[in-house]
Parts: sequence; C-alpha cells; structure tokens
Amino acid sequence: MEAIILTVGDEILIGQVIDTNSAWMGQTLNEVGISVKEILSVGDELEDIVNAINYCMSKADLVLMTGGLGPTKDDITKVAIAKYFEVGMKYSEETYTRIEKIFLKFGKTVNESHKDQCFMPENARLLFNKMGTAPGMLFQKDTKMLISMPGVPFEMKYILKEEFIPLISKQITSKIYHNTILTAGEGESFIADRIEYILKNLPPYIKIAYLPSLGYVRLRLSGNNENFEKLKNTINEFSEKIINELGSIVVCNKDCSLEEYLLEIFNEKKLTLSTAESCTGGYLAHRITSVSGSSSYFLGSIISYSNGIKSSLLNVKESTLKNHGAVSEATVREMLIGLLNQTQSDIGVAISGVAGPNGGSVEKPVGTIWLAYGNRNKQEVLLLNATKDRMKNIEYAANVAMNKLRLFIQII
Amino acid sequence: MEAIILTVGDEILIGQVIDTNSAWMGQTLNEVGISVKEILSVGDELEDIVNAINYCMSKADLVLMTGGLGPTKDDITKVAIAKYFEVGMKYSEETYTRIEKIFLKFGKTVNESHKDQCFMPENARLLFNKMGTAPGMLFQKDTKMLISMPGVPFEMKYILKEEFIPLISKQITSKIYHNTILTAGEGESFIADRIEYILKNLPPYIKIAYLPSLGYVRLRLSGNNENFEKLKNTINEFSEKIINELGSIVVCNKDCSLEEYLLEIFNEKKLTLSTAESCTGGYLAHRITSVSGSSSYFLGSIISYSNGIKSSLLNVKESTLKNHGAVSEATVREMLIGLLNQTQSDIGVAISGVAGPNGGSVEKPVGTIWLAYGNRNKQEVLLLNATKDRMKNIEYAANVAMNKLRLFIQII
Repeated sequence: MEAIILTVGDEILIGQVIDTNSAWMGQTLNEVGISVKEILSVGDELEDIVNAINYCMSKADLVLMTGGLGPTKDDITKVAIAKYFEVGMKYSEETYTRIEKIFLKFGKTVNESHKDQCFMPENARLLFNKMGTAPGMLFQKDTKMLISMPGVPFEMKYILKEEFIPLISKQITSKIYHNTILTAGEGESFIADRIEYILKNLPPYIKIAYLPSLGYVRLRLSGNNENFEKLKNTINEFSEKIINELGSIVVCNKDCSLEEYLLEIFNEKKLTLSTAESCTGGYLAHRITSVSGSSSYFLGSIISYSNGIKSSLLNVKESTLKNHGAVSEATVREMLIGLLNQTQSDIGVAISGVAGPNGGSVEKPVGTIWLAYGNRNKQEVLLLNATKDRMKNIEYAANVAMNKLRLFIQII
Repeated sequence: MEAIILTVGDEILIGQVIDTNSAWMGQTLNEVGISVKEILSVGDELEDIVNAINYCMSKADLVLMTGGLGPTKDDITKVAIAKYFEVGMKYSEETYTRIEKIFLKFGKTVNESHKDQCFMPENARLLFNKMGTAPGMLFQKDTKMLISMPGVPFEMKYILKEEFIPLISKQITSKIYHNTILTAGEGESFIADRIEYILKNLPPYIKIAYLPSLGYVRLRLSGNNENFEKLKNTINEFSEKIINELGSIVVCNKDCSLEEYLLEIFNEKKLTLSTAESCTGGYLAHRITSVSGSSSYFLGSIISYSNGIKSSLLNVKESTLKNHGAVSEATVREMLIGLLNQTQSDIGVAISGVAGPNGGSVEKPVGTIWLAYGNRNKQEVLLLNATKDRMKNIEYAANVAMNKLRLFIQII
C-alpha cells in the first residue's frame, strides 16, 4: 500500500515549525508495511488545499492529512475536504458533548468556535481523539482512503497509531517483520565495517537500516515475505550474528530507548540512581523520568547550575572550583561523591561541561564535557569532546552517560 | 515571487531524517520576500523526480531542489533534471579540478564516483559551493527558475544565501512581513472569541494564524504587499489592538519561547531562580537551561523524585508526607520553602504531581499536579488537572510554571 502525507499550515512553509510529524508518520507507516511515496506541505489557502488533495488522491491509495482542524478560522482543512468530495457539512452532537465534558473538567465553558469544530464533511467517519478536542476523520473514495488528523503531534500520533492502524491492518497483505538492535558508543560507519561480511549473505528480501542518533545507533533488519516464519527466523539468525560480532556496544536486542533499558537493568539488579548535572541542566533526569515506573530506581537529582550550588549542595571544595574550574575532572569527581552522600543512591553520575555556544575558552572550548559515574567503591571519569551546538551537546552527554551507566552496573 | 521547495531522498520519506532544510529555506526566502507555496518530498526514483520537477515548475516561478547530488549511486537528481529539460550531460573540468584540490588537502585521491559528480545537465549554470564538492546548479526556462543544491545543510545554506539570493534579489518586488505575539494561559478558541471584533477589520492581504502548544498559543499576523511600509504599519497596529484586548495573557510581542522570555525578564529584574521538581523530573530545569545564557539567573534545581530526597534535601516534614501525601498543597509549599533556603535563589517554583499513566488514585487521579511558586515573602499555589498522558502532563506543568513565574515577578 502506497501513501502520501499531506500537511496543511502556513507555519511549515514559512519555517516557523519544523515538520517532525511527517518523519514520525513515515517511520510508523513503514513498520506496518505502508510505504510513503511523497510528502506534500501546503498553506492555509482553501484552493491550494483542495488542489493538493486532488493531486494526492490521484497518486496514492492512502492520503494522510495533518493540520488545520482546530477551532479557529485559519483551520480550513475540513471545508477543503468537503469541497473535494462535493459534500455538505454535518453537525456532530457526539463531538460537542465530548468537548463540553473536557471543558467542564477544567472549569471552563465551550464557546462559539467550538461549535464550529463540531461541523464536519457529511461523509466523514470519526476517528476518536483521546488526546484533544478535534477528532480525526476517515473518508473513502472507491478503493482509496483519506484520513485527516490534527497537527498537534501527540493527538496525531494517538489517532494514527491507536485508531487508524488497527483499522487498516487487515487490508495490508504483505507481511513485514522487523528486528531492531540498540547499540551505543560507536558510529554508523564503524558498525557498517564490522558487520559487512555478515550482511553480504543477507537475502534480497531483507534490508538493513542504520538509524543513528547522538551517541547511539539502532540497526533495523526488516523484510517482506509471504513465508512469514522463514522471514522471522532468517532475520533473527542474522540479528544474532550481528550481536555476536558487535559485542559490548550492543545494548539490547529490541527497539527500546536507553532510558527504558536503564529502568529494566536497575530494577533487575535492585540498584538506585541519582544524577548531578551542570551543563545538561536536568535533561538527563528528564530523560530518565520520562519512562513510567522510573521512580522504582531513580531517587532524584541535584542540578548544580551555579558554582554556589556545586559547593553548598554537592560539597565541591571552593579550592577545587578555583584551581581546576567547574568544568574539570576534579570537580565532577567531587560532584559524584557529594551526590552519593546527599542522595544515598547506590549509583550516581555527575556531568559538567561547556554546552555552548558561549562560555568556551582556549583550554576548555565549547563541547568540553566531563563525566564521572560510579558507586562508593569505584568511580570512573570520561572527557567528551562534543560539538559547537548547545542542544546537541546536552543530548549527547545524556546519551553517553546512560550508556556508561549500563556498562558500569554490568560489571559490578 | 512564489517558490516551491522540492526535496529528494528516501531517508525523508521513511522518517530516518527530519527535514530541517525546508524550514530553514522557508524562513530565509520569506525574509527576502519570496513566499514558499508548497514543499514536496519525493524518493530516489528517477521517474518520481522528473514528475515532481514537472509538477513544481508548472506551479511556481522558482523551484528549489535539495538532495541527490552526492557521489553515490542513489543520487540521481542531475539525471532527472536533464531528462526534464531534455538535454544531455556535459563534463565540468572546473568542478573536477576543485574536487581534486579539496581531496589533496586531506591527503586523499579522487575516485571514479567523483568523476561522475562532474557531469551535469548541459544547460546548468554553476553556483559555487564553498562548503563541499558538489556545486549548486541554476536552470532557466522562460521566466521560471530551478535551482538544485546538495542536501547537506551547511552546503545548501551557503549556496542559497551567499550565491543564489544575491543573484535574484533584484527580481523580487513583493514584500512579506510577519509579527508574532506569544500568549500563555488561555486556549486558542478563547483568544479567537476575544479578538474576533478586531480581526473583522483585517485587510485581505493580512492573515492571522494560531499556533497552539500545551499552555501557550502564538498568534502570527502575516502579510504580503508591495507597499511595505503600509503593510508593516498595519500589522503593527493590529498587533497592538490585539495585545491591548488580551491583556495579561500576552507574554510578549515577538516570536520567542517562554524560557527565552524568562531569561530576559529575570535578567532585567536582576532576580535568580531555582526549581524543585518531582513529577516533571528535571524537565522544567532542562527547558530553562536550553537557552544559552540562562546561567545568568538560573542557579539550579533539586529533583526530589523520591520522598527521601523531599525530606533530606528540601526539608519537607515526614508528617506532611504522611498526612497529606507527596502530591499535595502542603508538600509543594514545604518544597518551595525548603528550595529557597537551600539554593538561596530570589524566586522558586516547586512541582509535585501524578504524571501517569500509573500511580493515580480516586482522590488523586493521574494528571493531579500541584505547583507552588514565589519568594520568601509571598508564595502562591495552584492545582492543575491535566491529562492521562505522561509526557503531556510533564510539558504542560513546565509551561504553566514558566507562565506563572513571569506573572509573579511582574507584580513584585
């Protein structure tokens, strides 16, 4: 099945918003065997949207629209869809009742613009939106389908994954099987070189994709075969060979995040964790606590952004800060010891660096990041030379820290 | 002048890469008065690329292509362009000499695939690429133009900004102007109702867009007019009326984030800030410190994920935790006081809630989040009834906290 993604909204065309929705949809659709043929973005002009729908419907079996379903006037996707299908609008009492209920819960009352939101093209079949007020809509034309979803990412994600895909999955005939291996600590080309001799024997119906992020790479083997058992076994055999070859850089043989894996192994080993963060500013704690259940092992964090807090809460000596600076091996070592004393966690990690873009010097350029991790008996330190980009440095440091933590508790 | 952006590459369609190039191009082109009408992404199939060029050239004065100019086999943009224009390929000695020179500098020698890179459509005019080996190309057809650039962001940026825009700037007659207003604390439809009477008088060449997020909404007025002074004045006048009508929910009259605005006003008032976070797990601190320069006012944070740390580091009484629970007004009040004492910051904010999806109860369902903020003299508390979704709750709580902080320091 071939799909086109159609996003509506001036904010994408003028670059105010980066279209992350389409990438997520592309990934998610691929996993269930729907290939995305094109992605098209148009602005909030009625005629342009109608033309775009026409173009997409003529070229693909499935068109996925996002954006333009909110209660305000610039949201004209519904009108464009009605025009394309040459149908009128109907009022959905069901949607109004839902919106009213949501608003009541927050002590607010609905207004006129919410009534507008309850009008939809006559031929729409509603897709439940658990995450917001505007429902998704499904339309059929001969063998073709159009779905329209809000542009708000978590609303779109809910509707696509929980409502639409279960509905359509029966129509997808080809069988797709994926296996994902999470690796951390080496780059894409290092991995490619190491496993080249294994991949030479990969049958033509199995493809490998490298999905690199900052500090980790996911390898995805995916195949498409009517003999599903054979496909599954072959992919699993090759996965095993790759895992054996790559050794300790393999985090796990499944599609999970580093933070999800940490929760699993800290619980398995009945260990607790805390973090002391300077340049990452709470990002590592945030990543760890983004996983439901993380309170089972994560005690908390001291974000010592100022030197004052490094001294008062983490007991870093003033002389250390003066002689070595806040970004130094000596400081992160003291931060780690101070952290373990303060939080009484089994394991800790401390990070201090120059995130950038300002604050660098000749001795400590932007991207200089010190990490210390360990327990009361054993501490290890590491110096990262990251990039000039603030957000990339923060993310990279957090990912390296999580990888080092999983390696550390494997050997203690 | 109207443009279409055409990006080539399977990696975008399967969601392996997020298309940040188009957003940057949209912004950059808008600034010089070229409005982007559509963005289209297609895969690495010759026929699809030719069709896409055809489609774009029929709809716009200017088509900007990125991607598909590298040395590997899947890069077939040039072949597609030659096919579209029905011309042959020519060999560019000039390009070969440049590539050879670059490689020599790195002690490497060129190979066959680099020779391929020197072939280009006969009607191409080269655009110098200071940042890489593949030059940009400019094509003309009647009054229309097509430019083709590599997909590597800094190469594309160089060619567009330094080579192409100076070339074309004389031909641009219409002028584009935007103004963005950041609001927080009320939803899109509340705002729409309040300013409806103002927008009724908006001239047809000015459009309003609502860009809603969790807890805040950006309003964008944008227009396109040859009389640029008139356009600018009219947009600014309407912005002023909207700001007057909306009152304190207006954060600021520019396109910035809540965290960028906090940095500005805390510095202006010479105040310092710290946070005590339970359910947000460091996310608020992360957002605050994602802005370069935030160390000028943000001292740090105590992430008290466990009750132990709430007691030991924030001095929340064990009796309070026992009698009221960790998610309660009494606890966040004590967290705030404990935080101010520990960090000695002027202003503080404390958050404790049930982020979900697990951990809720009848009295405290998932989404129950308590906030306390203030200084030593004055503290305010707030109860949020958020959603069932963990990440939404975390983000919403952080955004509400930032909005409450800016309101609080305005009145002290």
